[in-house]
Amino acid sequence: MAMVKEKEQNTKDKKLLVGVIWNFSAELKLTFMALLVLCTLATLLPFIPSSFSLSTSDFRFCISRFSSAIPVNTTTTTTTVEESSSSSPDRVLDNGVIKRTFTGYGSAAYNFVSMSAYRGGVNSFAVIGLSSKPLHVYGHPSYRCEWVSFDPTQDPISTTGSKILTDWGYGRIYTTVVVNCTFSSISAVNPQNSGGTLILHATTGDPNLNLTDSIPVLTESPKSVDFNLYNSTKKKYDYLYCGSSLYGNLSPQRIREWIAYHVRFFGERSHFVLHDAGGIHEEVFEVLKPWIELGRVTIHDIRDQERFDGYYHNQFMIVNDCLHRYRFMTKWMFFFDVDEFLHVPVKETVSSVMESLEEYSQFTIEQMPMSSRICYSGDGPARTYRKWGIEKLAYRDVKKVPRRDRKYAVQPENVFATGVHMSQNLQGKTYHKAESKIRYFHYHGSISQRREPCRHLFNDSRVVFENSPYVLDTTIRDVGLAVRTFELRTIGDRLLRTRQ
Amino acid sequence: MAMVKEKEQNTKDKKLLVGVIWNFSAELKLTFMALLVLCTLATLLPFIPSSFSLSTSDFRFCISRFSSAIPVNTTTTTTTVEESSSSSPDRVLDNGVIKRTFTGYGSAAYNFVSMSAYRGGVNSFAVIGLSSKPLHVYGHPSYRCEWVSFDPTQDPISTTGSKILTDWGYGRIYTTVVVNCTFSSISAVNPQNSGGTLILHATTGDPNLNLTDSIPVLTESPKSVDFNLYNSTKKKYDYLYCGSSLYGNLSPQRIREWIAYHVRFFGERSHFVLHDAGGIHEEVFEVLKPWIELGRVTIHDIRDQERFDGYYHNQFMIVNDCLHRYRFMTKWMFFFDVDEFLHVPVKETVSSVMESLEEYSQFTIEQMPMSSRICYSGDGPARTYRKWGIEKLAYRDVKKVPRRDRKYAVQPENVFATGVHMSQNLQGKTYHKAESKIRYFHYHGSISQRREPCRHLFNDSRVVFENSPYVLDTTIRDVGLAVRTFELRTIGDRLLRTRQ
Repeated sequence: MAMVKEKEQNTKDKKLLVGVIWNFSAELKLTFMALLVLCTLATLLPFIPSSFSLSTSDFRFCISRFSSAIPVNTTTTTTTVEESSSSSPDRVLDNGVIKRTFTGYGSAAYNFVSMSAYRGGVNSFAVIGLSSKPLHVYGHPSYRCEWVSFDPTQDPISTTGSKILTDWGYGRIYTTVVVNCTFSSISAVNPQNSGGTLILHATTGDPNLNLTDSIPVLTESPKSVDFNLYNSTKKKYDYLYCGSSLYGNLSPQRIREWIAYHVRFFGERSHFVLHDAGGIHEEVFEVLKPWIELGRVTIHDIRDQERFDGYYHNQFMIVNDCLHRYRFMTKWMFFFDVDEFLHVPVKETVSSVMESLEEYSQFTIEQMPMSSRICYSGDGPARTYRKWGIEKLAYRDVKKVPRRDRKYAVQPENVFATGVHMSQNLQGKTYHKAESKIRYFHYHGSISQRREPCRHLFNDSRVVFENSPYVLDTTIRDVGLAVRTFELRTIGDRLLRTRQ
Repeated sequence: MAMVKEKEQNTKDKKLLVGVIWNFSAELKLTFMALLVLCTLATLLPFIPSSFSLSTSDFRFCISRFSSAIPVNTTTTTTTVEESSSSSPDRVLDNGVIKRTFTGYGSAAYNFVSMSAYRGGVNSFAVIGLSSKPLHVYGHPSYRCEWVSFDPTQDPISTTGSKILTDWGYGRIYTTVVVNCTFSSISAVNPQNSGGTLILHATTGDPNLNLTDSIPVLTESPKSVDFNLYNSTKKKYDYLYCGSSLYGNLSPQRIREWIAYHVRFFGERSHFVLHDAGGIHEEVFEVLKPWIELGRVTIHDIRDQERFDGYYHNQFMIVNDCLHRYRFMTKWMFFFDVDEFLHVPVKETVSSVMESLEEYSQFTIEQMPMSSRICYSGDGPARTYRKWGIEKLAYRDVKKVPRRDRKYAVQPENVFATGVHMSQNLQGKTYHKAESKIRYFHYHGSISQRREPCRHLFNDSRVVFENSPYVLDTTIRDVGLAVRTFELRTIGDRLLRTRQ
């Protein structure tokens, strides 16, 4: 096996090897033919244009599999089988020691699953993907980035990629990896705008499978880069919402309320990016459609990531893709869920609040936990059932708990990678005391039930339900009518017959 | 990609496909050529004799890698690039949704690493190896065994393999798997002794990489099986020692003492199997050599398993290989370490003790913790330094602790898989109260220091050293002279100049 591998590097030995192996058996001849074909292809590969997405290592991998499948004792003369009845290929060495062998088969996890790559500035890039979790816990995988220009007079340049693991402690078979590649020695990558390809060289660093996969992750066609984008303070949007992976049997009515509420809340210069991991089924799509048509909502279908078993539908990868994809298009970027409703004090507007937070790269947002099962029947039972969820789910959980989850917003140009509850990879200040300026109301468990949410109606300002204390909190309820009116005025009555 | 895969199964579509893809680009032509060659080979493969160890799935794997490397948009007409500057192959669907793609590259862990397979009886086998740890924690890998007879008139038979995970909770990138394959519907596998091959079909069960690797794990040549072995009560040995993985810079003198002590302890009808994971360096080999030459010791060189990152040099795999390899050759099998010394009361012999434990399939052995740094100088300092370690390291740690590790012995025919401190996969009774019959003295930390072990000499029967209480315990010391004499009488003075 070792001999066969060397051959790859040194074709001079080819004839000798052919002689040795050819004499061996008819079976090996066929294997060798296959090897020869693959080696020829591997040799030809570098001459194929770099936009071609099949990497040399793909061939090498196959070749190594072929060669490892040849029994290891083919080049020794005889094998003495030890006292045991096993006919394994173990050999007895001259000193009497039994040399044991171990042969790997198949593949249980990819080295790298590529989702996307984006420019992070004039001379930097971010690559977003998944990688084998234990490889990162126990191994020493490393990354290198190479820029290959379309201009043949330009030499390829390369830099060390620094990996950011955003879901440390959470991965399953896969973990999310953001690779930051900054070419710090030069003022710009692709300065003549002649186009080129960014290649990520991902090395397992594993003594067993120390292979490097070379992955073309981003191609810039000639004249396609607008370098001004990375130095400009003018942004397409003021506020962009990056949603996490949506999955399960979501309620169309709850999503209808959420999107109408927030389109109104954030105003004209905002945009919503939702990620469909199976949750945006046909009826949910119908309530989003009017907003898509108005250009207020973009849906990414990320169902294909389900093939890769990471943490919660690979949500860490998804939010990082969103961060880097829209990083230069918005001043602020918000990360929270579709069962959560942002709110600023009545005397404020979202823009007055955000202006007051401008010195921070990030701020976290305090949670107001709302019941998703008990309702306020101030309008009488019959009228209550016709109300929107946010109008009737008006009881707030006031049980004391040590700590509640927070959500957050960032000025994305200062952020290198992000998480679900906050970013830990950014430059600039983070503010954790914005509760007097902005909060979010969380209707936990409301969005994945397809039925009228009210289980019990109450009229009191304080109730105890299932041993938990609640108080009436009409903060969001009070905006209900305005949101309904806004929806009707903006997209008409298309959604009037939306179901729970 | 899906089309290319279907083609594998249905060659009728071949021409249509060629037409579609051939028009596309010059790059694809080359890829397709490679595919064609691989497919042809894959088609030929079933006609190759089954002893040939390259499985169909190896080809399939390569083919799937080739086809996945073809950009997914080759069969759609155009791809609209979204507002972002990324030139990823994401498509905008008719409904405005952006379809995101995820492409896996390389391999971070094998599906199965095969070490060995042994008969477990007339109609059963055990296969020992490693498999990806997160695959077993989060996925649903499964195993099937197939027996393919050399006699062409015999149809292959197959059975479900039941996997035993012996190091649950301990693995790293890899975990140890013992697959038990019992063909319960028949009285014997290979009944005419015409020979054949056992193939392990290992399926990842992963929606992402649901491939089956077909691994020939054991070949029986015609007339090679002695079926009487599996029904006989006559064994080659009474006692067989299965050592765990030996690694690090071990002390030759400590190993010299250990092997001489235990060859004497177990007597003529015993054998020692040691596993070299790097610990049996040249000087250690020298002290074992006389015993190897006498046929008392067998060394397995298992250094190659270091390539696979499992728990502590894959010791769980190693002890299971030893269990199954020697299962029908010995009445009792012992599992403990080379810094541990077994002892039975002076009035007993090992055989009288073992006879009294015969009704148990397994018994565990209590630990006597000995200091590896403070020595008894009853012979005076000058003579003390010339003594063996077991003669001078005579102080026992009497600190109260909730529980000390145990070691164990089994009657291996009743055991299906084993661990390091005991087996949890066996039939029959386990006995935990053998402390009056047999114990082990543990000189923790003594074997991997290459210097005189005594740091301090004492004469008292009770001492306190570094805040821990010790008592003088001469149990092993008292046997010292007898062991030295035994060694000299059995192998001569070859080891007199052994160094620490």
